[in-house]
Amino acid sequence: MDALEQTVKQVIQRLNLLRQGERVVVAVSGGPDSLALLHILHTLRTHWDLTLIVAHLDHALRPTSREDAAFVGRIAAQLGLFCVRERQDVRAYAKAHRLSLEEAAREVRYQFLAQVARATQATVIATGHTADDQAETVLMHFLRGAGLSGLKGMLARSRLVLPPREPDTPAEPPVDLVRPLLFTPRRDIEAYLERKGLHPVQDETNFDTAFHRNRLRHELLPLLEREYQPQLRTRLARTAETLAVDWDFIQQAVNTAWEQLAQIHPGSITFPRDAFLALHPALQRRLVRRALFTLRPLLRDVAWDHITNALFIATHGETGAQATLPGHLMLRREYDQIRIESDPVVQEWPQLSEPMTPPLDTNATFTIGDWTLTLRTIPREALDVSPFENTDRWQAFLDANRIHFPVRLRTRQKGDRFHPLGMPGDVNLADFLTAQKVPQAVRDALPLLVDANDRILWVAGVRISADAAVQETTTHILHLMFQKR
Amino acid sequence: MDALEQTVKQVIQRLNLLRQGERVVVAVSGGPDSLALLHILHTLRTHWDLTLIVAHLDHALRPTSREDAAFVGRIAAQLGLFCVRERQDVRAYAKAHRLSLEEAAREVRYQFLAQVARATQATVIATGHTADDQAETVLMHFLRGAGLSGLKGMLARSRLVLPPREPDTPAEPPVDLVRPLLFTPRRDIEAYLERKGLHPVQDETNFDTAFHRNRLRHELLPLLEREYQPQLRTRLARTAETLAVDWDFIQQAVNTAWEQLAQIHPGSITFPRDAFLALHPALQRRLVRRALFTLRPLLRDVAWDHITNALFIATHGETGAQATLPGHLMLRREYDQIRIESDPVVQEWPQLSEPMTPPLDTNATFTIGDWTLTLRTIPREALDVSPFENTDRWQAFLDANRIHFPVRLRTRQKGDRFHPLGMPGDVNLADFLTAQKVPQAVRDALPLLVDANDRILWVAGVRISADAAVQETTTHILHLMFQKR
Repeated sequence: MDALEQTVKQVIQRLNLLRQGERVVVAVSGGPDSLALLHILHTLRTHWDLTLIVAHLDHALRPTSREDAAFVGRIAAQLGLFCVRERQDVRAYAKAHRLSLEEAAREVRYQFLAQVARATQATVIATGHTADDQAETVLMHFLRGAGLSGLKGMLARSRLVLPPREPDTPAEPPVDLVRPLLFTPRRDIEAYLERKGLHPVQDETNFDTAFHRNRLRHELLPLLEREYQPQLRTRLARTAETLAVDWDFIQQAVNTAWEQLAQIHPGSITFPRDAFLALHPALQRRLVRRALFTLRPLLRDVAWDHITNALFIATHGETGAQATLPGHLMLRREYDQIRIESDPVVQEWPQLSEPMTPPLDTNATFTIGDWTLTLRTIPREALDVSPFENTDRWQAFLDANRIHFPVRLRTRQKGDRFHPLGMPGDVNLADFLTAQKVPQAVRDALPLLVDANDRILWVAGVRISADAAVQETTTHILHLMFQKR
Repeated sequence: MDALEQTVKQVIQRLNLLRQGERVVVAVSGGPDSLALLHILHTLRTHWDLTLIVAHLDHALRPTSREDAAFVGRIAAQLGLFCVRERQDVRAYAKAHRLSLEEAAREVRYQFLAQVARATQATVIATGHTADDQAETVLMHFLRGAGLSGLKGMLARSRLVLPPREPDTPAEPPVDLVRPLLFTPRRDIEAYLERKGLHPVQDETNFDTAFHRNRLRHELLPLLEREYQPQLRTRLARTAETLAVDWDFIQQAVNTAWEQLAQIHPGSITFPRDAFLALHPALQRRLVRRALFTLRPLLRDVAWDHITNALFIATHGETGAQATLPGHLMLRREYDQIRIESDPVVQEWPQLSEPMTPPLDTNATFTIGDWTLTLRTIPREALDVSPFENTDRWQAFLDANRIHFPVRLRTRQKGDRFHPLGMPGDVNLADFLTAQKVPQAVRDALPLLVDANDRILWVAGVRISADAAVQETTTHILHLMFQKR
């Protein structure tokens, strides 16, 4: 057995990464790391009686990506392994969900891998992340000013939990993620490929490291190793390893505290106040974070100041004192409880949890948080009210003859313009919302109805567009209605 | 009240840094940070009824250091404060204790500050470390590959515990250390001095930051802020703040586990095995570290691999299995205990805990770990044994007529040479110890008797020098004897 195969075998044993008879999806880009991983696991498969499934996602980001997919197919065939390949337009996905290319690629990739795992009844996905990737990850988090959970880097075995992409759909059942090469330097991988006569393609994942991460890899890390710490990559991988142990210890304490104290109600989470305040601040901070992510699974980033301020109110505030939190949430200090719930102002407005919904079926009802939206297209003569005399801000009557279907809902974007009914022409949407005294807290997630050309037809709860207003000549009406559940 | 004074007051209140009526030693180099600290605390003193004592250590490292001391004296006099100044030759101290200049300066400075605190009945020492110092500290630890305790940086209030400088003397009673400017960026200090018309001297502490830290401050941090993260200093100070909370949480758990499980015996520490193995690895690792530092208070650095290997033996080893640890210690897996104790090989040899002892009184007995060393100078005719027929390796009879007194004990240094009795001339000491089969583990701390010119007279337990061997003409004998207690 090759020396690296032996080393990886020991890592898998020591950290209990794979179990007897497990079905493993191996993520193979065709680049050096994943190619080595596949060959190593193939060599070791009999030891644990593993069944390997090769999965390759073509991100459609480079001209040669189809060739890479073909290459991975051939490798899998040579090894006699089942291979699932898929092509997805990551650029379009990034645009639709307003993500960076790197974020979009990661989301699409892990969704694909999780799908393959479920379809093949695999319980674990193996990726080729190396000690060098780990060092880069730790350095990246360090420069961002991350805390323990960032500085611990990637874990050798962790749970892959994908947030639901559509609101109100349950999260998919979890799959585990293992990284058997996490303690192996990239140069050892290269030497292994050389010894085995294996020729990888250029690693497609390089694109997703994009500008920032590529600069860390190719400029900053070499500079730091040359000038300050020759062993930096090794040291950072080790830092990650020790911090992961500390993180796990704290996480276990948080889990225990959560199970003992958190009471989950519809739309809010409470903690008994005395017991909460008796906890160490390291746990208090994490319980508040977990409450936020439980109430708002799609929340991306929680600022440090928000939590600090909320904890100050929880500790020192009078009964009734409250602190705003991200995700339109707030913490309220009640007599004998700490409550985290929706900001009441926000409850008065429907809010989109995603920047853009799929095209709307125009004879259907949709759920948007605590609200429903009903759309129907009807002949004008079937209408039993006058479309000109609507006084309900949560209803709109639009001229279906002039609308380019399909319509969608989206949130506002920088530079949005809009022609409000009753005004002579286009205005800046941001200025308009201010003039209409729409609460600051709800503007970012306020639903905007747009047509197929992304023109704004209706600013929900505020005003319809003059371009879609019903006219004398209108024969068909698009009727929309938001209702609080 | 000035804005910065107000900010610092809030920091002191929020973190409970100073208590009502406390006596505070303010460490003042005369540089910007400490000068600002002194003025701010002087303004705030009535709020907590503080008594301030100014302490200045002249490290004798720069030509202008006497002027700085005079400057600090004048400032203290202007404010009507008691001022203690002392001059110490840090370079000589560094050489005597084989420390880097930075380490030596820190040791000498904190010893001085602790002395002043005890002499003036102060319970706390205030230093002028800023958020910039904190960022540099965190960055420095990051590049070294530190874990949580390094990455947390400096604490706003911590206990100052000085290790005893002489073996077997008890550690001094602890004093607290506070850093009220730890969240204040250096530029805010500069603006404050400007507003107040205060003119500091160039900060003397810059020397002790020496080459490495100065490069971090003047080259690396600016580069990282320019190219990668404009807010890096702020981010790192915040990282330190959150990690300090996590560190404190783990520390409390370690304290509890230590009190419950650690049994301290003469020369060893045991843990009940089942209870120890039931602990989270984050605690196991720290209990082993604490055992090491309890048995060896002067230990400097404990390698990660040592602890990992020891924990592996503790967890998976058979009864009787053992792992070496630094400080000539070992961990042994006993039937129902984990024991940490001196390596038995090492117990057979006296070991110096310091690189160099003070000059030895030649008619006295000294304690060296578990051993005593007795010296006496006697006329040859008073000797009741023949100096030529000594067969006890732990005794030496030397020609006092040829020795340049005073003599000392020290440990070996790179390049040491020595003329062993019975050999034609000088040999390399390292080669000689190997040839004589002195166990590797004891060589670094083996006592060497040297004369006033640092010439080796006796390699304890191995051989005397031909240059000090008793001759026919010898009239006075220096007799030395090591005895295991």
